[in-house]
Amino acid sequence: MALILLCVIGAFQLKAQNADSVALRRIFDFYLTQSSCYKNLETLCHKVGARLSGSPEAAKAVLWARQAMYEAGADTVYLQPCMVPHWVRGAKEVCSSVSLKSKQKIMYSVCALGGSVATPPAGTRAEVVEVKSFEEVEQLGEAGIKGKIVFYNVFFDHTRLHTGACYGETVKYRWAGPSKAARYGAVATIVRSMSSIDNDFPHTGAMGYDTTVSKTKIPCCAISYAGADKLMAELKKDPKLKVSLTMSCQTLKDEPSFNVVGEIKGSVKPKEIILAGGHLDSWDLGDGAHDDGAGVVQGIEVLAMYKKTGLKPRHTIRAVAFMNEENGGAGGRAYFEDTKKNNLVHLAALESDAGGFAPRGIGADTTSGLYQKLLGWKGLLDPYFLQFIDAGGGGADIYPLKKLDVPLIGFQPDGQRYFDYHHTADDTFDKVNKRELELSAGVIGALIYLIDLHTH
Amino acid sequence: MALILLCVIGAFQLKAQNADSVALRRIFDFYLTQSSCYKNLETLCHKVGARLSGSPEAAKAVLWARQAMYEAGADTVYLQPCMVPHWVRGAKEVCSSVSLKSKQKIMYSVCALGGSVATPPAGTRAEVVEVKSFEEVEQLGEAGIKGKIVFYNVFFDHTRLHTGACYGETVKYRWAGPSKAARYGAVATIVRSMSSIDNDFPHTGAMGYDTTVSKTKIPCCAISYAGADKLMAELKKDPKLKVSLTMSCQTLKDEPSFNVVGEIKGSVKPKEIILAGGHLDSWDLGDGAHDDGAGVVQGIEVLAMYKKTGLKPRHTIRAVAFMNEENGGAGGRAYFEDTKKNNLVHLAALESDAGGFAPRGIGADTTSGLYQKLLGWKGLLDPYFLQFIDAGGGGADIYPLKKLDVPLIGFQPDGQRYFDYHHTADDTFDKVNKRELELSAGVIGALIYLIDLHTH
Repeated sequence: MALILLCVIGAFQLKAQNADSVALRRIFDFYLTQSSCYKNLETLCHKVGARLSGSPEAAKAVLWARQAMYEAGADTVYLQPCMVPHWVRGAKEVCSSVSLKSKQKIMYSVCALGGSVATPPAGTRAEVVEVKSFEEVEQLGEAGIKGKIVFYNVFFDHTRLHTGACYGETVKYRWAGPSKAARYGAVATIVRSMSSIDNDFPHTGAMGYDTTVSKTKIPCCAISYAGADKLMAELKKDPKLKVSLTMSCQTLKDEPSFNVVGEIKGSVKPKEIILAGGHLDSWDLGDGAHDDGAGVVQGIEVLAMYKKTGLKPRHTIRAVAFMNEENGGAGGRAYFEDTKKNNLVHLAALESDAGGFAPRGIGADTTSGLYQKLLGWKGLLDPYFLQFIDAGGGGADIYPLKKLDVPLIGFQPDGQRYFDYHHTADDTFDKVNKRELELSAGVIGALIYLIDLHTH
Repeated sequence: MALILLCVIGAFQLKAQNADSVALRRIFDFYLTQSSCYKNLETLCHKVGARLSGSPEAAKAVLWARQAMYEAGADTVYLQPCMVPHWVRGAKEVCSSVSLKSKQKIMYSVCALGGSVATPPAGTRAEVVEVKSFEEVEQLGEAGIKGKIVFYNVFFDHTRLHTGACYGETVKYRWAGPSKAARYGAVATIVRSMSSIDNDFPHTGAMGYDTTVSKTKIPCCAISYAGADKLMAELKKDPKLKVSLTMSCQTLKDEPSFNVVGEIKGSVKPKEIILAGGHLDSWDLGDGAHDDGAGVVQGIEVLAMYKKTGLKPRHTIRAVAFMNEENGGAGGRAYFEDTKKNNLVHLAALESDAGGFAPRGIGADTTSGLYQKLLGWKGLLDPYFLQFIDAGGGGADIYPLKKLDVPLIGFQPDGQRYFDYHHTADDTFDKVNKRELELSAGVIGALIYLIDLHTH
């Protein structure tokens, strides 16, 4: 009897798995032949372009996202207000030194870090002290640093298999380096770009002045990988080398902006939400193609998947294009506040913010039963190149929802090329491969489909 | 007692797995920080460049490979002779039509297929008949085809997850299309490029005249994806459209050439060989970076792995750079003949000929116990992005060794971008990502290491 029961249950599960497998094939057929995500990304990159929070382009991106969500098949699209910082780069930064022997001027590719103050209009000129860690800064102290430019020259650890880990280890010099150097009287900082390749693109990104560390705000910039190598070489020849740096960036007053939230109401449990999205804002260099136009169009395509395949979601499906992930997180906070205020229930929130590359895995941060369910679906997604399902993960925009115990899922495409482009002028549409973008969009769509179907 | 024995065996296996895991970490540290494969590929692409069999560049590539193998640490490097075809493209092909309405000349990007005969010097001008299959050719027969240019216009099936499957389905029109059309009196054929993306690069590749099908050899070319779309549109407007095609390619007399075989003698069983390699020849467009410079430098790097990490192979390790994979397979046959003649024993032969992309899987064609062993190592290689180990696989150059029951392994990197570049002028060094190439080289090195260590 028990054996028969087991067989019956087994047969039932097999049938369910088979139905899922057929549905996933249908979903991927849609993504690989009819989806608009690549075309949407092209429009976002080429008709809107770079869209830093507070900029006119970011406002244009909001309107674009609303339109794209309606076109994808959203029942409703909300604009969810938030106030965002408005930092502007100003004229192109100039950084140079004069070679000891040849007396020739050497130019370095640099870019101001987001949030940095400007140099004086005539620029800052000072000796450079190269460091490899914050400990070195502490050891040097005022005697070694005062009046100088601190050059944080820390390479990626290429033995790391996941490039995100390299970024995690080095980004602190970008974020916290300026205040830690200012504390000992540095006049500016230059940080080696968080780059996985040797080229001449500087990588911008957010920094934060910590007034508990230093009340003085000093200008700070990133230098390209090749530029950092050149600067290292020059410093070796001439430890007294003086570098000139001119930046005219400034922080204007905060601007009103929006998250864009498009939804298809659930046919069975409309009050329970499943979210997929990315962030709409980007840095002001490049097109914000991989970071994070890809995540935005993948989120929107989940709506299109339901509309264009005729599948009906049981729960409410939301595509969210978050504002201000790059330099503030105002959109993520606003989404959280709205969720809390309106007692919204989220079954899961998935963020794609690691580039438009081929699928590799997901990381799920949840103590609910969802993680076990995800593991159970691994076999279904394996043919579509989902290699791993890790515990832990999420995304900067959905992270606040953790306080409400929302299961978070971070989508992890293959990351080997991400830090070639991340935060640079080279993060452009042509760097995104159509099939890679679509396959990952398909995995995201399939995950949302499975969560919706199998949550009761 | 049995339980204790099981525990002891279990502990022993765990220890072995752990030692393997430590060794693999060391191997990947080498590949990700000290390997020369990316630099070698740059040299091959930029100092040698395109290297079609029989060309002076192919001869130069042989010398380069020999040198690179010695530098990697080979004890001995053999040049293994073979006679190869020598086909030359001649002047750039020209293909055009005159628009019905505007009377404007429309140009199409085409390239002759390798092995094609030329058109008459003044070109071939004829009406075009578009077909989607060989069945259509049969149905059209002489009445529909005689005196015309047959346009094989078959798209990739984008629902296929592995792009190699798309290629497999369409390449027959390139290879066999000319004779099948000539049989009914066609004057030339144009085939839609085996391309996964919509751009203007035509994809060349081998074709073969089958004199049992038709004694007439007609000129044949590939047209770019965008060009094929244009031609389709023009034909729709004007079914009587005439297309002009001029090609001046020719087949010269066969040339002597070589496989390059570099080896490190085994310390325990020098008479047993483990082979890793790719093919040295490339098409005459582009740099042959992904196809198959990548496979060649990955093979060479296995030698470097042993030499530079201080690991000693138990069996003889061979890196092989095969000649003439693209248009003849003379190198693969010569290697087989040499193996047979000298009664050489191969424990395994691994070929990498699917681009220098990030790792995805391997396919193993073997009835020996090796396949089970490979499956057992899956967990060890999982962190290094080896997602699948399939039954069945190999490579064109190692395929003849199957007759000698040599276990064959085909390395399968992520293939989503391969047919963007394959056989085009766009298959250049800059399309290869350093980390992706190195990670795959590392997986290949690790596999060879494991096979060597665990074969007794």
